[in-house]
Amino acid sequence: MIDLVIQGGIVVLPDRCSETDVAVDGERIVALGTATSLPQAKRTVDARGCYILPGGIDPHVHISWPFLEATTVDGYADATAAAAIGGTTTIIDFDHPKMGTTPLERGTNRREQAHGQAVIDFAFHSVLTEASKQTLSEMETLVSSGVPSFKVYMAYSRRGIMADDSTLLSIMRKAAALGAVVCVHAENGDVADANEAASLAAGRTSAGDFARHKPNYVEAEAVSRAIFWARHTGVQLYIVHLSTAEGLRLVRAAQAEGLKVMAETCPQYLLLDEAVYERPGEGHRFICSPPLRSPIDREELWEGIAEGVISVVSTDHTAFTKEQKDRGKTNFTLVPNGLPGIETRLPLLFSEGVSKGRISISDLARIISLNPARAFGIYPHKGIIAPGSDADIVLVDPTIRWTLTAERLHMAADWSPFVGWQLEGAPVMTVSRGEVIAEYGEFVGKPGRGRYVRRACEPWQ
Amino acid sequence: MIDLVIQGGIVVLPDRCSETDVAVDGERIVALGTATSLPQAKRTVDARGCYILPGGIDPHVHISWPFLEATTVDGYADATAAAAIGGTTTIIDFDHPKMGTTPLERGTNRREQAHGQAVIDFAFHSVLTEASKQTLSEMETLVSSGVPSFKVYMAYSRRGIMADDSTLLSIMRKAAALGAVVCVHAENGDVADANEAASLAAGRTSAGDFARHKPNYVEAEAVSRAIFWARHTGVQLYIVHLSTAEGLRLVRAAQAEGLKVMAETCPQYLLLDEAVYERPGEGHRFICSPPLRSPIDREELWEGIAEGVISVVSTDHTAFTKEQKDRGKTNFTLVPNGLPGIETRLPLLFSEGVSKGRISISDLARIISLNPARAFGIYPHKGIIAPGSDADIVLVDPTIRWTLTAERLHMAADWSPFVGWQLEGAPVMTVSRGEVIAEYGEFVGKPGRGRYVRRACEPWQ
Amino acid sequence: MIDLVIQGGIVVLPDRCSETDVAVDGERIVALGTATSLPQAKRTVDARGCYILPGGIDPHVHISWPFLEATTVDGYADATAAAAIGGTTTIIDFDHPKMGTTPLERGTNRREQAHGQAVIDFAFHSVLTEASKQTLSEMETLVSSGVPSFKVYMAYSRRGIMADDSTLLSIMRKAAALGAVVCVHAENGDVADANEAASLAAGRTSAGDFARHKPNYVEAEAVSRAIFWARHTGVQLYIVHLSTAEGLRLVRAAQAEGLKVMAETCPQYLLLDEAVYERPGEGHRFICSPPLRSPIDREELWEGIAEGVISVVSTDHTAFTKEQKDRGKTNFTLVPNGLPGIETRLPLLFSEGVSKGRISISDLARIISLNPARAFGIYPHKGIIAPGSDADIVLVDPTIRWTLTAERLHMAADWSPFVGWQLEGAPVMTVSRGEVIAEYGEFVGKPGRGRYVRRACEPWQ
Amino acid sequence: MIDLVIQGGIVVLPDRCSETDVAVDGERIVALGTATSLPQAKRTVDARGCYILPGGIDPHVHISWPFLEATTVDGYADATAAAAIGGTTTIIDFDHPKMGTTPLERGTNRREQAHGQAVIDFAFHSVLTEASKQTLSEMETLVSSGVPSFKVYMAYSRRGIMADDSTLLSIMRKAAALGAVVCVHAENGDVADANEAASLAAGRTSAGDFARHKPNYVEAEAVSRAIFWARHTGVQLYIVHLSTAEGLRLVRAAQAEGLKVMAETCPQYLLLDEAVYERPGEGHRFICSPPLRSPIDREELWEGIAEGVISVVSTDHTAFTKEQKDRGKTNFTLVPNGLPGIETRLPLLFSEGVSKGRISISDLARIISLNPARAFGIYPHKGIIAPGSDADIVLVDPTIRWTLTAERLHMAADWSPFVGWQLEGAPVMTVSRGEVIAEYGEFVGKPGRGRYVRRACEPWQ
Repeated sequence: MIDLVIQGGIVVLPDRCSETDVAVDGERIVALGTATSLPQAKRTVDARGCYILPGGIDPHVHISWPFLEATTVDGYADATAAAAIGGTTTIIDFDHPKMGTTPLERGTNRREQAHGQAVIDFAFHSVLTEASKQTLSEMETLVSSGVPSFKVYMAYSRRGIMADDSTLLSIMRKAAALGAVVCVHAENGDVADANEAASLAAGRTSAGDFARHKPNYVEAEAVSRAIFWARHTGVQLYIVHLSTAEGLRLVRAAQAEGLKVMAETCPQYLLLDEAVYERPGEGHRFICSPPLRSPIDREELWEGIAEGVISVVSTDHTAFTKEQKDRGKTNFTLVPNGLPGIETRLPLLFSEGVSKGRISISDLARIISLNPARAFGIYPHKGIIAPGSDADIVLVDPTIRWTLTAERLHMAADWSPFVGWQLEGAPVMTVSRGEVIAEYGEFVGKPGRGRYVRRACEPWQ
Repeated sequence: MIDLVIQGGIVVLPDRCSETDVAVDGERIVALGTATSLPQAKRTVDARGCYILPGGIDPHVHISWPFLEATTVDGYADATAAAAIGGTTTIIDFDHPKMGTTPLERGTNRREQAHGQAVIDFAFHSVLTEASKQTLSEMETLVSSGVPSFKVYMAYSRRGIMADDSTLLSIMRKAAALGAVVCVHAENGDVADANEAASLAAGRTSAGDFARHKPNYVEAEAVSRAIFWARHTGVQLYIVHLSTAEGLRLVRAAQAEGLKVMAETCPQYLLLDEAVYERPGEGHRFICSPPLRSPIDREELWEGIAEGVISVVSTDHTAFTKEQKDRGKTNFTLVPNGLPGIETRLPLLFSEGVSKGRISISDLARIISLNPARAFGIYPHKGIIAPGSDADIVLVDPTIRWTLTAERLHMAADWSPFVGWQLEGAPVMTVSRGEVIAEYGEFVGKPGRGRYVRRACEPWQ
Repeated sequence: MIDLVIQGGIVVLPDRCSETDVAVDGERIVALGTATSLPQAKRTVDARGCYILPGGIDPHVHISWPFLEATTVDGYADATAAAAIGGTTTIIDFDHPKMGTTPLERGTNRREQAHGQAVIDFAFHSVLTEASKQTLSEMETLVSSGVPSFKVYMAYSRRGIMADDSTLLSIMRKAAALGAVVCVHAENGDVADANEAASLAAGRTSAGDFARHKPNYVEAEAVSRAIFWARHTGVQLYIVHLSTAEGLRLVRAAQAEGLKVMAETCPQYLLLDEAVYERPGEGHRFICSPPLRSPIDREELWEGIAEGVISVVSTDHTAFTKEQKDRGKTNFTLVPNGLPGIETRLPLLFSEGVSKGRISISDLARIISLNPARAFGIYPHKGIIAPGSDADIVLVDPTIRWTLTAERLHMAADWSPFVGWQLEGAPVMTVSRGEVIAEYGEFVGKPGRGRYVRRACEPWQ
Repeated sequence: MIDLVIQGGIVVLPDRCSETDVAVDGERIVALGTATSLPQAKRTVDARGCYILPGGIDPHVHISWPFLEATTVDGYADATAAAAIGGTTTIIDFDHPKMGTTPLERGTNRREQAHGQAVIDFAFHSVLTEASKQTLSEMETLVSSGVPSFKVYMAYSRRGIMADDSTLLSIMRKAAALGAVVCVHAENGDVADANEAASLAAGRTSAGDFARHKPNYVEAEAVSRAIFWARHTGVQLYIVHLSTAEGLRLVRAAQAEGLKVMAETCPQYLLLDEAVYERPGEGHRFICSPPLRSPIDREELWEGIAEGVISVVSTDHTAFTKEQKDRGKTNFTLVPNGLPGIETRLPLLFSEGVSKGRISISDLARIISLNPARAFGIYPHKGIIAPGSDADIVLVDPTIRWTLTAERLHMAADWSPFVGWQLEGAPVMTVSRGEVIAEYGEFVGKPGRGRYVRRACEPWQ
C-alpha cells in the first residue's frame, strides 16, 4: 500500500500532456501509469478535469528583505505558505550583504532564518558586491556546499550593492571556473543614477518620472555588457527580470551565437505596463526595478516565452505594504522598490497565458518549474513529474473563474498589483514531497516543514 | 496481474536516463515506476545493466523494390524479422510508381503486399512523380486515410521517377495545405545525368567514377532548391539521406531561419567514405545514391547529429545480393543502387556513436525513434517509453563485444558493407506491442503479426 | 589650340559633383580644371546650369532581334541615333544563336551587321545555349578577342534558348577560369512553362494572365540557383533585369557573403507596375519578361539602387511596333516580349530618380555609366569624366519640363510605354569620342561613325 | 602663366591611378590633364616615376600634451615641420581639459598656441570629460564655428579625464543632434584600473606587466559599449587607435548593421607587437595606450584595412624623450604613455604596406588622406587631388631604399620605435596650399605659415 495516487488528471510533461495516474510513496513519485497498473494507495485524489503540473519553483523572491530604510513585511512562514497556496513548492531567495560579513556567513545566517519557518523547500543565491580574495575563495566553498549561483547588481550604487565591471568580471571568471551561474540585475547604474539626479534637479519626482528615468536602454546596455563578459568568460549567465524588447533581442542573438545565456521575466512585465504609474494616488505603488514598460515590450516578452528565448518566469516577490509604498507618494526616491507576487504567479500565468492561448500548458510547466530546476541545479529531483523525482505537484482546475482580491490572498503585503483581475483557472491542491500542503486556497501542511535544498552545478545545454 | 515488467534497467528518455521499471499490459506500456510500486506481472525481465530504448523506427527502407532491371531480394517477412532482431519495431517503406496506376492504388497494393507478412508495424510514404489533378486529389484521400508523407525524387530521369521543379512545387503546395510532409531525394538530376553521360563518353565507368560523377554540389544544389520551395510553400520538408557537409550547412541555415526542415542521414554516410570504391573487386558493391563521401563530410554529419541539425538516422535499406551488384562490376550504370542495412542500424550507431562518445544515449533514442515518430505522425503512440504508449521496446546490453559477420545477419542480402567490424554493445531483446519478438539475435515472435500504422499530420515545432 | 572645352557646368564624378571645366582634344578628355587654367579651344560649349555626365552605357539592348515569329523593327543606324539623342554613347547588344552556327561566327556576323551602321560605340555579349566542347573552346577565343561576357537564359524552352543547370554550370566554370562574366536571365523555365500550359488549358490568355503565370517566385528561384552556381564556380555573375523584391533580397545576401554578384534592373520595373496589363486594348503591349510587378517590388528596386545592391539600370530595349504587339491581343503567347526604351533611359531616370529625390545625380552616373563600364571591362576608357578617358559626355539641363510623346521619340517602334509622362530635365548635348553627335533632340553626328569596342576581363571588387 | 605644374607622375585617385599632370595656381589645384593641354607654369616639377598623393591628414596627434607629470617636448613649429617632411599637410590635434576652463576657452587657447607656429594646416578635436549644461551648449557653438568632432576617454580615471557612460551618452546624444562626430578612446577604465591595482599589489610593474594589465578584452568591451551607445543615439562614432582583432570584429559587425562607425589604427599597431616590451632596458619606452598586441592582432588589422573596415591610419603622435620615458623604467605607472610618429606614418605605410603588397597605393591614399578628410569635414577641400581642391600634395619615390635612424628624423623626441628599419620608398616633396614646403627630407617652407581649418559637419555614408 503506497501513500497517494492522483488519478484521472492530465499530467503535464515537458513536451506534451499524458492522461496518466501518478503514484507517490513517501517523498517521491514512484510511478506513472494507468489506474489498473498502479498499486493501492492510502489516499486517492480524484484529479479528473485537472492539469497535474510539477510544483512551481520560484527562483527570484525576496523575503525579509531590506531596501534602503524599509524592509519587506513577510517572514519565511507566511511567505512560503502563500507560495504553497499559489502552487509553488520551492523558492530560491537571496543572501543580502547586510545579512553578514562574508558570503559564507550570510549564507549560514540566511539558511537559519528560513529553517523551521519555511513550509516549502528553499535555497539561496549568494549576492556578491565585491570580488576580494576572500570572496572568491568563499565562492568555491559555497559551490561545493550546494550554492552554485551568485547574484550581481549592475546598478544600485545608492544602496551600496552595485558591482562595477571589474567586480562583475572577476565573479564571472570564478563562477565559470566553478561551473556556477551568475545572475545579473542588468541596469546601467551610472546612467540610471545620473538620470535620477537630473530628474530630481528638475523637480520630476512622480511615479511616471521614476519610469522615465530608467528608459529601455538603461536595461538593454547592461544586458549587452553582461553578455559581453559572459562571452569572454564562458560563464552561464542568467538575466533576471528582463523587461524590454531590446534586451530580449540581445538575449536571442546571444543564444543564437551559442552562448549560455538564460533570461527570466516576471508576471508584472507580462501583464502590466507603464500606464499604471499614472493612476492617481496609487501609481507609485507599482514602482519596481526595472520599471514596467510599454505594451509593445509586454507583448514581445510573451513572444519571447513562446519561442523559448525567455526560459523562466519568476516573481521577484517583494512584500511592501501600501503604507511603506506611500512614504514616497510624491517622491519616487522614497518608494521601496518591488511588488508582492509569490502567491499569484501560477494563477496569473495560467489564466492570461494558457487560458488565453498565448502559451501552451507545457510552456507553463517549463517556465515555472522545469527550466528553473535545470538552471539552478535541482533537476531532475524537482521540475518534472517522473518516477524517482520529489513528489512536488500542483493540481490546476482550468474551469474555475474567480476574481483576485486582497482578501483572497495570503501574502503579508496588504495589496497586489492584480487586485480586481478576473481569472480563469486556479491551483486547487499543492503537494510537497508527498505531503498535501494546500487545498483550495488554504494552507493545510505542517508548519516549518520546508527543507533546505543543496544544489549542484548543472552544465546548461 | 499485468503481462510484463522490465526491471532494473536504465530507461532512456528524450532528455535523460532514469532508473525506472517499465510495466506492460496488453500492447501498451501501463506504468513507469520503482519496483515496489508496480503490480505483479506474468513475466519479469531482468534488465540490469541494460539500456531500455523505445523501439527503433526506420522511416527509410526499400523492400521488394525495383531498380531498373533488378529488384531487391527480400520480402516483408524476412526483412522485418531482420529489422526486429536489430531493434527496429516500425518501418516506413515506399509505394513505387511501378506498383500501381495511381497513388491510391499503389498504396492499397503495397499495404496488401506487407499484410500478413511483416512481423513489425509498418507504413508507407507515397512516391509521387507527377502532379496531375488526380494525383493532387488523391493526396487528400491519402492524408485523411493516414498517409501524411510523400516522397519526391529530384533526380533519376533514367528510372522515370524524376520530378521537375514544377511538379515538386505543385506537390509541396498541396502537401503544405494538407499539413503533410514532403520527403525529397535531393540530387540535381540534370547535372547528374550530364555528368554521367560525360563520364561514360570518356570511358570512366568504375565505382570510383560513379562517386566522382555526383560530387557534393550535385546534392547541395538540390538541397538549396528544395529549401527554396519549402520556404515558398511553407511545407514541412524532410531531406532524406543527407550526405554532404555543404548540404548540412544549408539545412542548418534553414532551421536557423525558422523553416520547417528536417534532415536524415544513414549509417553508411556516418561510417564509410569514398575510399571503399577503390577496393579491388568489391568497390562497386558500395554504390548507393548519393555516393559515399569524404572523411570530412562523414565527421561533419556526426557533428550535425550532436548539435541537432540532423534529426534522424534511417537505413535506406536496399537488399541487393553480391551477384546482383556484380552485374555492374565494370560499369557503374549496371549496378543497382543501394545497401542492405535494416538490421544493423542500432548496433552500428550504438557502438560507433554511443560507445565511442560521439553522441549520447539520449541522442540515439531521438534519432532512431523519437524524431522519426514525430516527423511522420506516430508520436506519442510510438517513439517514447511512457505510460499509454505502445510497448515497443528494445534492450541494449552495452557490454557485449562482437564481430559483425554475414553469418550473424538475417537480411536477405548475402553481404553487408560492415562485415568484419568489431562492435561494442548489442540489442538483446525486442518487444513489439507487448510481445517479445526477438531475443539474442533470434526472431521469436509470431509470423505476420505486424500491423499497418495509420499516421496523423503532425505540425513540426 | 585644343578641340573643345565644356565650360561652367557641374561635372558629375562618381562620388560628388565638381564645378570644373572639361577640355577635349581629339577623341579624349585631356584635362579637367578651372577656366583660366585650360588652353584655348576651337569650340567652347557653355554648360552653365547643366550637369555634365559620362556618356551613358546601355549594356542590355536588343537590336534586330528575333522573338519567335517576330523581329524587332530597328537597325543599328536608327536605334543608335535614338540612343545618342537619349544620352547613350555605348551599347552592348547580344549575339543570338539564330545569327550563326557557332558563337564565334555569330560574333563576327553581328559585328559586321552593326559596322558602318551604328553611330555610337558598340559591343556584344555572346548568348550561349549549350556547352559543347567547341563552344567552351570558342569562349576562350572570344574572351581573348575582347568579348568577356556571356549570356545564358534559364528559361524560354519554347524559343529553344533555355540552358539547363548542367549547361549553365559548364559555362560558369569556363567563364570563371577565364575571368569572364556570366549574365543570366533568371526565370525558372520548367515552372514558367508548366504555369503557361495550365493557364492556356484554363483559357486564361489575357495580358494579366501573362503576368500571373510568372509570379515573383519564378524569378526568385532562378536567382537563388544562379547564385548557388556562382558561389560554387566563383564566376562573376550579372543578373539582368531583376524585377522582384525577393530577388533583390537574395542578391543583397549574396553580396554580403562576399560573392561577386551584380544586379541590373530597367526603367520599366522602376516606373510601371502590373496594373498596366489591365488597360483595355493596350495592356498586352506591356508584355515583357520578366513581367512588370507590384508597386511594392517597384519601390524596393529603387531602394536597391540607393543602397548600391543594384548596380546598373539598362533598358532591355526591344522595339516591337503596336501592330506586332497586337498580334497577341487576346493571347499572350502570341505577343512578342519586350519594350522599346533605348532613347528614354536617361530622361526617365533623371526626372523620376534625381529630380524627385529618390537617387542622387552621382547615383545616376554610376548606374548608367560607371558601373556598366566596370562590369563589362571598358573602364576607365569609358564610364567616367577624367583626363585620358574617351570624351563620351552628355549634358543634362535639369530645368527643362517636357512631355514624352511618340512624336518626340526617334526609336523605330511607334510607341513607348511612357507616352504622356511629364518629365523634368532632359539631355541637351551628347558627345561621343570628342564629336558632338546630338543636340536638343536631334542627331547631328556622322552616319555609321560608331566603333566596335574590344573589352577586357575586369576583376570585380 | 600659372604657378606650378607637376608633370609625368602617377596621380593616385581614390579608386585608381592615372598618368595625369597636375596644374596648381595660387593655393588650389586648377587642372588635371595631359601635358599639352595644360598652360605654361612658372615652375615645373618632374615627377616621373613618382606617385602623386593627396597631402597626408593626420587626425590624431598630441603636441605640447600633458600626461600626468610629463608634457610632450615638441611645439607646433617643430612638430609640424617634421610632419611636413613626412608627407603630412594637415593635422587635427586635441584640446585638453587642462588648457582652459570650458571647451570654448580651451579651443581658443589651443588655436592661439598653434597660430603662427604651425607650418601646415591644423584643427582640433575638443576633448570633453563631463556633460554639464554649459558644455553641451558650448558644443553647439563649437560645431557652428567649425569644430564638429569631440573626443571622449572611456578610461584614465587617474588622469581625471575618464567619462562614465552617462557622460558619454549625453555627449553622443548632443553630437548626434548636431551632426557631429564623437571620437572615443575605447578602454574599459574600471577594469583597467582594477587590473593595474592588482598588478601593482603583486609587484608586477614591468613594461610587460603594463601590456598584460590591459588585455584585448579591455579594449573590446569598450568598443562594444561605444557601439551600443552609437546605435542608441545614431551618432557618428569614430574609434581611435583600434588595436585588437576582437575590436575589429565588433566594428565590422556594426558597419554591416548599417551603423555609422569608423575605426582608426596607427602604424605601431600594424608593425610592432608586445614582444618589444621584453627588450632589456628599453621595453618600457614602447608603452602606449592601448598597449601593443600580438602578431595575430597585428595581421588582422592589416586585413581590416584591406577590406575597408578600418578607414584611417593616424599616428597618435606623442613626443616623449627617452629620458622622460626612462622615469618609469622599473614601474610602468611612471612612464608617460605614447610614441612619437608624426613624421614616419607615410614612409612606414608605404614601405610595409604598399611595397610589400599588403595594401594598394589607392588604399594608402584613402587611409591617410581621403578618409580622414571625409570623417572630419574637410573634404573635398582636402583629401583628394582634383581641380578646385587645396594644392596639398606629396610626391613619393617608390624606389628609394633607406634606413630609418634617429638622426634622419626631425621630431623633437630623440628616438623612434622604428629606428633601424629598412624602408623602401620615401616622400620626396610636400606641397601645402601650392607652396613647396619640404624636399628630400628638409623643410623649405615659410615659418608659421600653417592655417587653422574650420571644418563642417559631414554626414557619413
